[in-house]
Amino acid sequence: MKKLINDPQNVVAESVQGFVAAHADLVVAGDNPEELFVSRAGGAVQGKVGLVSGGGSGHEPLHAGFVGVGMLDAAVPGPVFTSPTPDPILAATKAADGGAGVLHIVKNYTGDVLNFETAAELADAEGITVRAVVTDDDVAVQDSLYTAGRRGVAGTVLVEKIAGAAAERGDDLDAVAEIATRVNANARSMGVALTACTVPHAGKPSFDLGEDEIEIGIGIHGEPGRRRIPLASADEITDLLLDPIVEDLGVSSGDQVLLFVNGMGGTPSSELYIVYRHARTQLEAKGATVARSLVGNYITSLEMQGASITVLRLDDELTALYDAPVHTPALRWGL
Amino acid sequence: MKKLINDPQNVVAESVQGFVAAHADLVVAGDNPEELFVSRAGGAVQGKVGLVSGGGSGHEPLHAGFVGVGMLDAAVPGPVFTSPTPDPILAATKAADGGAGVLHIVKNYTGDVLNFETAAELADAEGITVRAVVTDDDVAVQDSLYTAGRRGVAGTVLVEKIAGAAAERGDDLDAVAEIATRVNANARSMGVALTACTVPHAGKPSFDLGEDEIEIGIGIHGEPGRRRIPLASADEITDLLLDPIVEDLGVSSGDQVLLFVNGMGGTPSSELYIVYRHARTQLEAKGATVARSLVGNYITSLEMQGASITVLRLDDELTALYDAPVHTPALRWGL
Repeated sequence: MKKLINDPQNVVAESVQGFVAAHADLVVAGDNPEELFVSRAGGAVQGKVGLVSGGGSGHEPLHAGFVGVGMLDAAVPGPVFTSPTPDPILAATKAADGGAGVLHIVKNYTGDVLNFETAAELADAEGITVRAVVTDDDVAVQDSLYTAGRRGVAGTVLVEKIAGAAAERGDDLDAVAEIATRVNANARSMGVALTACTVPHAGKPSFDLGEDEIEIGIGIHGEPGRRRIPLASADEITDLLLDPIVEDLGVSSGDQVLLFVNGMGGTPSSELYIVYRHARTQLEAKGATVARSLVGNYITSLEMQGASITVLRLDDELTALYDAPVHTPALRWGL
Repeated sequence: MKKLINDPQNVVAESVQGFVAAHADLVVAGDNPEELFVSRAGGAVQGKVGLVSGGGSGHEPLHAGFVGVGMLDAAVPGPVFTSPTPDPILAATKAADGGAGVLHIVKNYTGDVLNFETAAELADAEGITVRAVVTDDDVAVQDSLYTAGRRGVAGTVLVEKIAGAAAERGDDLDAVAEIATRVNANARSMGVALTACTVPHAGKPSFDLGEDEIEIGIGIHGEPGRRRIPLASADEITDLLLDPIVEDLGVSSGDQVLLFVNGMGGTPSSELYIVYRHARTQLEAKGATVARSLVGNYITSLEMQGASITVLRLDDELTALYDAPVHTPALRWGL
């Protein structure tokens, strides 16, 4: 295992310390290392719906990289690939509460769903109204190693951006939850792994892939996907990811879509743009218009080589909220 | 070789096609595929000094990712790890010329220096005044596989940002060149490789590194560095990179510095923040103030795992120019 780390047990704590020091104008970390969370510098915005997300670490910049104006109010980084417990989620929820309630954005993994539910009950007992939206945009498999139903993957980034903009403009909790639900309902994703990744405290790769083998439909923790195939061309792989997305979403002529090509952490951006190129051509061939684009490492699996494609069907309101200003460590425009 | 590519010969062309399609609001590619360059959408800004950089591909987002308002006017992506020829550099120079002259920002590699010089002579013959600033911020080695003198590495990103802001505010060619020279003179860098990278048309790794071996002082094409050592902790590696930087730059108490931790392409951002954490602590222990920070993949070596550290000594003018608005595909703030 070759990593730029010290003690594997301290990876998350030290990384968050560096992250908070580098972005002190935007984020702070809670005081209690047993209840680690990251929230906006300056505290909760009074009268604004608070947005909280979180989950296992190892997917950076998700979620802490998206804390800031126009996106999340707080994020809870669990141990690598392991859900945070209810205590830090509760602490983050309290830090994000500006009196208008808090929305939990939860990727559909069994541990995350349970722990966010418990935290929501605890917050409710303290007088904070919490609603949750569970993302499940991954079309690859129905159930998986850690999931009942579909997994929540890269669509989560778009949910956080767009619901964050709705909260920032002053929508109430129900309205922000509706927007988040609408983004999730109109987003579909699928990923591919060229290589496995290694969880620091495990010390060896999470799974084995042959020298010329790739996994189509990989999960963000290396959970099994649809099938393993021999290495193929970028265009062929792009088709294998995009076709199920297009079919499931029912992309049709005249649709306006956002095309998001996400890197898994170890893939050069030049390769992501090669995937983007063919995906865009294929969407346009179906009569869709690629109205917005996002290409880069936004939800990763440590140093895994691979990529995912997400298509979000846009409407005028979602487009305007996507375009709204955002200022976070990992996503920034208009400010 | 596992890569998301089609024909290895088409990697640069297809990647640039995807890049330009994804960022059509910011950049365009020239019409002639034999003279490939990327320039600002909307063309040269009349009366503004034009900034042009370029070099071998494989270091994305450098340089094309930095074309846009407040940074470069044009970038010339050569073949992977191979300098572009004078013809596309000349074409980019003409596209960037708004009548106030053009500054070439050239990383110190023999091929780049020669080809930019030839292009400058050709531009001069066509009536365009060109000045060049050669970056050489890498403290690792004096001469190297492709270089006489020190190599130009991550400091180049800061030269492009800060000189770009000087051009945007209306400085003339001499003044922009002076700013670029000042940034280079106050920047020092050094990198480490944990793994090698594979040039697509070569099909095998550029060099061999043992299972538990890392290379201190690596070049961005995998050129030899100072020495190979067994894998060490992130803090130890950070010291091995930072100490020569601090010594060479003469960082002393009271200095204001920009700390830039750059990923080589295959390293998760969580690890970059662990490096940042310790580097910041060490700089502060010397009495320096880390006034600005940049952490992420900005000048890469394909899928290489590793990182580089750059320290730039700031003055009030450099800080103000660094803070000035920038809107490019890979670096954006204030707009």
